[in-house]
Amino acid sequence: MDKEILYVVKIGGNIIDDELRLSDFLKKFAALKGKKILVHGGGRLATRMAENLNIPQQMVEGRRITDLETLKIVTMVYGGYINKRIVAELQSVNCNSMGVCGADGNLILAEKRKNAAIDYGYVGDVRSVNTELFSTLLHSDLAIIVAPLTHDMNGQILNTNADTIAQEIGRALSMAFYVELIYSFEKAGVLTDINDESTVIPEINANTYAELKSSGRIFAGMIPKLDNAFSAIHSGVKRVIIGKAEELELLTAHKSGTSIVA
Amino acid sequence: MDKEILYVVKIGGNIIDDELRLSDFLKKFAALKGKKILVHGGGRLATRMAENLNIPQQMVEGRRITDLETLKIVTMVYGGYINKRIVAELQSVNCNSMGVCGADGNLILAEKRKNAAIDYGYVGDVRSVNTELFSTLLHSDLAIIVAPLTHDMNGQILNTNADTIAQEIGRALSMAFYVELIYSFEKAGVLTDINDESTVIPEINANTYAELKSSGRIFAGMIPKLDNAFSAIHSGVKRVIIGKAEELELLTAHKSGTSIVA
Repeated sequence: MDKEILYVVKIGGNIIDDELRLSDFLKKFAALKGKKILVHGGGRLATRMAENLNIPQQMVEGRRITDLETLKIVTMVYGGYINKRIVAELQSVNCNSMGVCGADGNLILAEKRKNAAIDYGYVGDVRSVNTELFSTLLHSDLAIIVAPLTHDMNGQILNTNADTIAQEIGRALSMAFYVELIYSFEKAGVLTDINDESTVIPEINANTYAELKSSGRIFAGMIPKLDNAFSAIHSGVKRVIIGKAEELELLTAHKSGTSIVA
Repeated sequence: MDKEILYVVKIGGNIIDDELRLSDFLKKFAALKGKKILVHGGGRLATRMAENLNIPQQMVEGRRITDLETLKIVTMVYGGYINKRIVAELQSVNCNSMGVCGADGNLILAEKRKNAAIDYGYVGDVRSVNTELFSTLLHSDLAIIVAPLTHDMNGQILNTNADTIAQEIGRALSMAFYVELIYSFEKAGVLTDINDESTVIPEINANTYAELKSSGRIFAGMIPKLDNAFSAIHSGVKRVIIGKAEELELLTAHKSGTSIVA
């Protein structure tokens, strides 16, 4: 029997920060047919909240350190404000949805990151995904809206990268579903010229990826993302699509963005 | 066939504000056998957050007006920080739980309060409870942790009294479960002398309530709470128990607090 399709969509921070673009995106997400999961980042709202509360934000090598006060802010902003606002808005466009973080139903279990060089604070690396509960919720015809927070089963909430969460959910659910993992953001896809949106590469497979890398035709900053995408593909995800949030419908129809396939 | 028991427990604000007492309460909640729902209030955390953010709080006749900025704060604090902290802590004591607000899965639909005299702002009066989804979650062996927020199906989150939410959930689920509704707070129960905790009335039924009221033996402030309790009893809830959070086990064993029965 063919597996049912499941869209796991990651929506980037820039869209979250822009009320009108977010509304537009959510209407398109609501219109997607089939099972679906939306993983949202946090955008600048958490940073702004920390500023308003006079909580200094430590950055090391461009990454935010999650101290206890910052964890409290991201729990409020990601798990509360952004997550519930998205859910309420989806309800208004007839998309029954449920907002969760990784602690809810033990959906995403993680471990506090250990790094000899840098202490990132309360940051989690994903250990396991509760596929059974995700499936139960999806089969109740709920879209699941995931805030980028996990927990360690010892009472500690942990801040976790939203891209990683989307990928881990996609992998774990690929046993039960035909998973398409969609990274939607403000760019049109993987470009051969980062200044020219018309140079989107429509499809990359393992062979063409090797060629693109060796010829130096892809922007170096995309390489870790693409390596991650291939890692998802090798773990059961059928297709990873990278493209513009505004074009969600075209992305899922494989008519826009860059598709990464085996 | 006998219905399965369902505990709907409301935990008061004073306990939420006290980390040690909250932990102690959550261990006792985790130990409760059977299906269970916990409705939490917000305590003073939201007020403190508003102060820290310099957002003035309007009070009219002792009630907070929920303007848009205040709604944002309660969505963050109730729906995010408190709700997810409770869930993470319950996971650490082997109580698999899921945190929700009324917008999630359209669990609690409300309508913005209309009051000719006072505009309470973004405050919701409950219209319906999604018994089907509550049942699905309970039958997945999840304790459900409810933040006191509802929605109007038009994208608007609404602030809603936690006592009311507990009562509405109890009523709605009494079709499918044998519901015991427990209001747990810092007092030992309904007292005949509010300065003497040893004067707890163990049980009140409709007849004894009429006597207690006419003889003036109950503190006037308890009358609206008791009227609400009887209203729940008349709508299908089997028992309402009012008592100390620290004594949750004794309350459910009917060995402490005040039981309100038909």
